Amino acid sequence: MPRFFVEREDINDHTALIRGADAVHIGRSLRMRLGDELTVCCEGRDYICRIDTISDEQCTLTVLSSGEGQGEPKTRLTLYQAVPKGDKLDTIVQKSVELGAAEIVPVLTARCVSRPDEKSFRKKRERLSRIALEAAKQCGRSIVPEVGEMISLDECAKRLGRHETGLICYEKGGSPLSETVPADTGDIGVFIGSEGGFDEEEVEKCRANGAKVIGMGSRILRCETAPLAAIAIIMNLTGNM
Amino acid sequence: MPRFFVEREDINDHTALIRGADAVHIGRSLRMRLGDELTVCCEGRDYICRIDTISDEQCTLTVLSSGEGQGEPKTRLTLYQAVPKGDKLDTIVQKSVELGAAEIVPVLTARCVSRPDEKSFRKKRERLSRIALEAAKQCGRSIVPEVGEMISLDECAKRLGRHETGLICYEKGGSPLSETVPADTGDIGVFIGSEGGFDEEEVEKCRANGAKVIGMGSRILRCETAPLAAIAIIMNLTGNM
Repeated sequence: MPRFFVEREDINDHTALIRGADAVHIGRSLRMRLGDELTVCCEGRDYICRIDTISDEQCTLTVLSSGEGQGEPKTRLTLYQAVPKGDKLDTIVQKSVELGAAEIVPVLTARCVSRPDEKSFRKKRERLSRIALEAAKQCGRSIVPEVGEMISLDECAKRLGRHETGLICYEKGGSPLSETVPADTGDIGVFIGSEGGFDEEEVEKCRANGAKVIGMGSRILRCETAPLAAIAIIMNLTGNM
Repeated sequence: MPRFFVEREDINDHTALIRGADAVHIGRSLRMRLGDELTVCCEGRDYICRIDTISDEQCTLTVLSSGEGQGEPKTRLTLYQAVPKGDKLDTIVQKSVELGAAEIVPVLTARCVSRPDEKSFRKKRERLSRIALEAAKQCGRSIVPEVGEMISLDECAKRLGRHETGLICYEKGGSPLSETVPADTGDIGVFIGSEGGFDEEEVEKCRANGAKVIGMGSRILRCETAPLAAIAIIMNLTGNM
């Protein structure tokens, strides 16, 4: 069943409203008709709705039933990702959303080759947010994971320290995820490097702020493979996959 | 340190020989010099070697030390992958090699949209084998994982039954990997569907042959995300990541 995300003001227990491009999509691309059913998501809740009216401006719907979204993991995972080269962040955002990340925060580290300025990152962030929205619809999420503003290493180290479980994956090794992630953790932040990995001082700064240093085995994972492997393993260890 | 794979006949405990394109690569692209060191891999063993001579035809090397390859997981994992659309198999092969798969076997299932004939698959297989080789060099494997010939569902079901642990990941659900993969399993085969997933009879056929049916959680994973998540989780559960 197609999924659409709406703002709080556009849904209550009885009726829902889908506006703009989504309404056009329902009527023209999906060719849905009056009486057809779809899922409307708002703030982590899924609403099964029936279409009452369709126009290019809006669709009005009747809420048939609702419940907590089944696609949401019980563990809130924030991925801090050092900015990689090219369009790898596109892939990382798309797959992280599928695997259950709640938020993706790009970080500028010493070894980032790609160093977008504020203006060009603003454009990039818009694209990444659209990718997150499309992935959330496609894979059955009940929230749209946020792509955060780009932050510095210092800010990232501080934030890692504030998570219930804060992790940095270091290419030179550390503890295995299975010894570090408590099965009942409700809030986890995991920091992954870009192509060149991390400087030792960066790792030390994160450790000093309370993050645990993780090793992901003896093979060298590409910077777009490491976050996906880490998220999948964490979701498994916490009973969410 | 750069890694090169050679055949058994080209290495012994004292000397090694690197031929052809790899020799050109060492001399011209990498601009290595006499006395430089590199790693030569053969049949799961890593040999640290010193370059004695370089030409466009061959490099001769002295073996300085050798040991079992550190990049190889203790668990032998075979990925059976239903053929996806476009070039997704390229990504799946590359990432599976990084994550530690020993072999990738394409399978033609009922819902495969892409149905290459024998001739066009032969060409595709050559490309996939080159991708596996490059990934193995890059991530530090000590074997080059093989990309198998394309097989039928029936053949795949039979092979799954012969593995110590045989699994099929079903989009409609099954047991979690953490309850199904013994930590000490030495040989595992895992079967992942293409875009449309599996027909129920296909799942039943695999189950009848002894495979366990796996569910990967409540989100719908893309067909290129599912194998990577499954391999990462299995490598974690067996202590290899």
